[in-house]
Amino acid sequence: MTHLRAAEINDEIDGDTLHEECGVFGILGHPDAATLTALGLHALQHRGQEAAGIVTFDGKQFHTEKRMGLVGDHYTDPAILAKLPGTISIGHTRYSTTGEVALRNVQPLFAELEVGGIAIAHNGNFTNGLTLRRQIIATGAICQSTSDTEVVLHLIARSRHTSTADRFIDAIRQMEGGYSMLAMTRTKLIAARDPTGIRPLVMGELDGKPIFCSETCALDIIGAKYIRDVENGEVIICEIQADGSIQIDARKPVNPQPERLCLFEYVYFARPDSVVGGRSVYVARKNMGINLAKESPVEADVVVPVPDGGTPAALGYAQQSGIPFEYGIIRNHYVGRTFIEPTQSIRAFGVKLKHSANRAMIEGKRRTGR
Amino acid sequence: MTHLRAAEINDEIDGDTLHEECGVFGILGHPDAATLTALGLHALQHRGQEAAGIVTFDGKQFHTEKRMGLVGDHYTDPAILAKLPGTISIGHTRYSTTGEVALRNVQPLFAELEVGGIAIAHNGNFTNGLTLRRQIIATGAICQSTSDTEVVLHLIARSRHTSTADRFIDAIRQMEGGYSMLAMTRTKLIAARDPTGIRPLVMGELDGKPIFCSETCALDIIGAKYIRDVENGEVIICEIQADGSIQIDARKPVNPQPERLCLFEYVYFARPDSVVGGRSVYVARKNMGINLAKESPVEADVVVPVPDGGTPAALGYAQQSGIPFEYGIIRNHYVGRTFIEPTQSIRAFGVKLKHSANRAMIEGKRRTGR
Amino acid sequence: MTHLRAAEINDEIDGDTLHEECGVFGILGHPDAATLTALGLHALQHRGQEAAGIVTFDGKQFHTEKRMGLVGDHYTDPAILAKLPGTISIGHTRYSTTGEVALRNVQPLFAELEVGGIAIAHNGNFTNGLTLRRQIIATGAICQSTSDTEVVLHLIARSRHTSTADRFIDAIRQMEGGYSMLAMTRTKLIAARDPTGIRPLVMGELDGKPIFCSETCALDIIGAKYIRDVENGEVIICEIQADGSIQIDARKPVNPQPERLCLFEYVYFARPDSVVGGRSVYVARKNMGINLAKESPVEADVVVPVPDGGTPAALGYAQQSGIPFEYGIIRNHYVGRTFIEPTQSIRAFGVKLKHSANRAMIEGKRRTGR
Amino acid sequence: MTHLRAAEINDEIDGDTLHEECGVFGILGHPDAATLTALGLHALQHRGQEAAGIVTFDGKQFHTEKRMGLVGDHYTDPAILAKLPGTISIGHTRYSTTGEVALRNVQPLFAELEVGGIAIAHNGNFTNGLTLRRQIIATGAICQSTSDTEVVLHLIARSRHTSTADRFIDAIRQMEGGYSMLAMTRTKLIAARDPTGIRPLVMGELDGKPIFCSETCALDIIGAKYIRDVENGEVIICEIQADGSIQIDARKPVNPQPERLCLFEYVYFARPDSVVGGRSVYVARKNMGINLAKESPVEADVVVPVPDGGTPAALGYAQQSGIPFEYGIIRNHYVGRTFIEPTQSIRAFGVKLKHSANRAMIEGKRRTGR
Repeated sequence: MTHLRAAEINDEIDGDTLHEECGVFGILGHPDAATLTALGLHALQHRGQEAAGIVTFDGKQFHTEKRMGLVGDHYTDPAILAKLPGTISIGHTRYSTTGEVALRNVQPLFAELEVGGIAIAHNGNFTNGLTLRRQIIATGAICQSTSDTEVVLHLIARSRHTSTADRFIDAIRQMEGGYSMLAMTRTKLIAARDPTGIRPLVMGELDGKPIFCSETCALDIIGAKYIRDVENGEVIICEIQADGSIQIDARKPVNPQPERLCLFEYVYFARPDSVVGGRSVYVARKNMGINLAKESPVEADVVVPVPDGGTPAALGYAQQSGIPFEYGIIRNHYVGRTFIEPTQSIRAFGVKLKHSANRAMIEGKRRTGR
Repeated sequence: MTHLRAAEINDEIDGDTLHEECGVFGILGHPDAATLTALGLHALQHRGQEAAGIVTFDGKQFHTEKRMGLVGDHYTDPAILAKLPGTISIGHTRYSTTGEVALRNVQPLFAELEVGGIAIAHNGNFTNGLTLRRQIIATGAICQSTSDTEVVLHLIARSRHTSTADRFIDAIRQMEGGYSMLAMTRTKLIAARDPTGIRPLVMGELDGKPIFCSETCALDIIGAKYIRDVENGEVIICEIQADGSIQIDARKPVNPQPERLCLFEYVYFARPDSVVGGRSVYVARKNMGINLAKESPVEADVVVPVPDGGTPAALGYAQQSGIPFEYGIIRNHYVGRTFIEPTQSIRAFGVKLKHSANRAMIEGKRRTGR
Repeated sequence: MTHLRAAEINDEIDGDTLHEECGVFGILGHPDAATLTALGLHALQHRGQEAAGIVTFDGKQFHTEKRMGLVGDHYTDPAILAKLPGTISIGHTRYSTTGEVALRNVQPLFAELEVGGIAIAHNGNFTNGLTLRRQIIATGAICQSTSDTEVVLHLIARSRHTSTADRFIDAIRQMEGGYSMLAMTRTKLIAARDPTGIRPLVMGELDGKPIFCSETCALDIIGAKYIRDVENGEVIICEIQADGSIQIDARKPVNPQPERLCLFEYVYFARPDSVVGGRSVYVARKNMGINLAKESPVEADVVVPVPDGGTPAALGYAQQSGIPFEYGIIRNHYVGRTFIEPTQSIRAFGVKLKHSANRAMIEGKRRTGR
Repeated sequence: MTHLRAAEINDEIDGDTLHEECGVFGILGHPDAATLTALGLHALQHRGQEAAGIVTFDGKQFHTEKRMGLVGDHYTDPAILAKLPGTISIGHTRYSTTGEVALRNVQPLFAELEVGGIAIAHNGNFTNGLTLRRQIIATGAICQSTSDTEVVLHLIARSRHTSTADRFIDAIRQMEGGYSMLAMTRTKLIAARDPTGIRPLVMGELDGKPIFCSETCALDIIGAKYIRDVENGEVIICEIQADGSIQIDARKPVNPQPERLCLFEYVYFARPDSVVGGRSVYVARKNMGINLAKESPVEADVVVPVPDGGTPAALGYAQQSGIPFEYGIIRNHYVGRTFIEPTQSIRAFGVKLKHSANRAMIEGKRRTGR
């Protein structure tokens, strides 16, 4: 029963609009900036496995490394981390939104502006991205990637404001839709979340240094402390001062809108040990199962979770209903997460190879016909 | 001098006694032999992730492909499968028993004998492997790998018997210790299990063709039917006849010994959906938890499994004790299985990156001091 | 700060003045456009071995492939050529002008403009490249590569003209310095050479289709016919018409300047079988040797060429002086061309491994002390 | 004219019997043994480009590295050289004699014998290799490669002699055909050349340490001194003594046979700066041209060498005949040596891409009809 439900959800969420999932991580003023960013991205790997990139600034110049594949396949290599010196860093794990997975689309994207370099890492989807792109091209700009993030860079580059922070806010104001975004300059780490708060973004702290990341699990992996969620419509600008201290300036430059945190963050995207919007994802999932048991009780022999997304809900259903919870489906851990692979054919093959029935728990059990 | 060398080898071979884990799969007379072997090895991936090899025979010649890494990284490639034509196939997934992980040690191993070619895939550890190796070298043979499996090949090559099956049995009789082994020739698929049955080996059937593999989960993935376990001390010889039919000959050429199926197959090695020794591994693990709850009751708030090996036992403990079962530890799926990696340093790093506490389920809970 | 950054860029760009060498090839209207471009680039390999790229247009979309390394290492692969369908193609072999050899710097560069896509391949060095770059950035543009070629793209994108050809000419007019450049759009192949003609660029023809390339040796490899040199300051626009015919329009939009064909094309860059500026490179080199023998006669036992650049001059010296020509230095062909590698340390090591004395020809010979 | 001749030679030498070409290098007692071996193999690269291997012994254990491809692509990497510690080393560059180019066939081959380890590198072709292989297999041995060199290892392993040197000589005596071979043990470097001396093998010295290699050019690259050729049928055994000194023992254990040094060493295989059989290869090639001019004078405008093999002969012809020597054919250096690639199709393609006519030297010249 839970099985059927889960399959339906999977089918539903295969559509295009959900492909906005990505993971971002940034830290300011820490000597191990790149390594901490790599660890944070590893914890956020479930938000995108196609590629990962990290940018650092070492006081003199920016450094960029981008790689196709998993964080752990590349950013555990000391030779790669050695190419990322500096105390400011942002990183990005990417789930490709198009068939074209080229390194030039891998974030963070970087641009040398008149006021200095800026790098941006972005999780979201602008509803007016294409319109903005067309306007920018019409006035003689060159777009070299197909990502919305490049549009943001252009908006910043064209802004008439002098400070990078003001230019960033100027760009934010022109964008419609959902985003959680990090930017870094030679002295600043900037975090922004759209007015509806559709994608999560949290603020943490390690050794007194500010961190922003998509989910709290990226704070946990490095032992950082959770401070608060970035609020809807908020832009937080952290800047290293001449004396090494960090000044934090939080603003709300865009008009408030009704909250619209994406449901699928709780259902599927976020890691169960993360706290999203102040609520444990695990508890939220479990409560869905508890509520389902109240709303739709069935007579059944066992409650079987579809690993791993459906497990907390199945446990909730079992606890509420009193029906035994049993592992009737076993997952092969040597296949990547089904949902997140780019083509339908690989997805189908993945599903076949990934789950197998645990006969001992299923044979002889009733089929409940819903 | 040679003595020192032998001691060095001894050190390399006598590692952790748990390092005997490997997966084997063989099929006779099926047009998709290599693809089915690849799928079977994928299901057995948990038994060894260092390397995998497949040998086929196409009526004219033997074909071998060996690759470092996961089955799914290589043997899903149609170009590689196209290099493995034929209707007889055996395969092997390997967990390196030594620091040296060279392709020449990857199984199956193949030898061209006077009576024709033979390939062998082996899961186990001979207690007299080093003694046999020394004897063989003393009489002028050359050992090019460091694996016990090569010793078997030498014993077969030196046998005075004329048929390959008799030579194989001749070799088996000289070996002491544990093994589950597959061999293939131009017409035969041979399965052998040591008299104590320390490693699992089952017989199945697909489209009327015999299959042997380490665990039943490799039958399930291809929709094959489980026939029976290969018995302790049994050698089963399957041979294609001139009319295409398959003749099966089961023998017990070695003296019976007390059964000694490795406990760790139930505790750790085997997949929970496999049936080992006639018992569901999942049920066996769950029963361990139930028995533990009876023998060692504690007052506690939650039962938290250490994923994934400990999950069924934790569930059994929870069901028996009535203490709620909750996921207090979350696993990062983008790290390989901790236990099975070759060096201590990687193992330690892996553990750190792999598990994280699910605060929502742990905070405020009692610590029970046992 | 930006000033410092600019200075850094300046240092990177203003390396050895000989680093301007690259090879370009373009063809319009031919069904084998990509393969012919690959062969042409192979013949031009001596002009740059760091990377090579090819762009094609297939009537619907542009296709780009870029690879680090030799043309023959990648573009002989049918799978790569299959990704480059279409009848219009330009390609580029690159000799890195900076330490950073990133794929994003590999040409041709492509941009999607309001009037459609355009790709550019460029051999040369603008004297006002940095100034133009600063101006462009100051008005809000984003530069993602460090190559001058991107500046050209920006100038084209910003032009107020409507046709691509007029925009291209508009851009050319703003550039100072030397260049031989190819551009392609959905229907056009455009060739341009700077007013001083510092880099070679020739026009050829195969099966009635126009070809432009750096040297005639790229025409010879595909059996194409040499038509003429692109003249100094000339822009030649070839366009496919609706009926499939090709219209060719040659213009001279920039002010004439004194010819200044780079001496090193004859001395070192060009292949000896190429005809540059109407003169055989081989004959030019030989004549240098003949003239040297006239101007600076010496008494010597043998004339020994330093392979391979110095061979024709040595032969000319020998023929003129009557002193025997002998191979006293032997080249190891398994090392790349010394001069053209990017770092001094590799260069030094390369020289050591590349040439060896041919004792039989050198022992006992006089040293002439000049 | 010379062109046609060379083409004929190329066709002739494409047969199987000439595929015996390989390069060997060995050194005893030198702290930089592996690096010197790598440099020596680089100088011998023309004798085989398919793969290269090096074995060293560091006083405790043997180390082996094997790589497909050029010496310079791998053995210039400090990380690879660091895996080859020790003061004894032999190496091999390989020109595949079969379609199967597998790492297990790459030499040197190594075996752990009762008397200790031995590694062998071999250039040659046994006429009784297949017969010996069959005999060895018939008595219960296992052959894992398809190379003749493995047969030698088996013969050594089976010998009843106690010392490795005696076992090696025992093996040599059973082999028929041509070979130049190096072997190394924990204390010895052994060189052997067949009684007809079909393949070259020379002895040199660096810092008082003995070196053996295929051609003198491998001595020149490291500044080593040429001592003498290994004589036909000679076995030279060099052994490090307890006091660090090296004892050299030269024997002639096999019956003398008429000398039969392969003609193609002078015509094609050897490097022109090598001295083979006491004669400069360059001078030998030039003399062939001088003799050809005497025997077959023609009226012609120019003598054009086919680079690079034919160049010295063409120069000899030109000097003898008084006809001008000119480069009428230009070679593209970015293609590997034509002759030596394994498949006909690649060979054909290679030729097409490799040479181009130098029109300036050929146009208007007479065709001499021979």
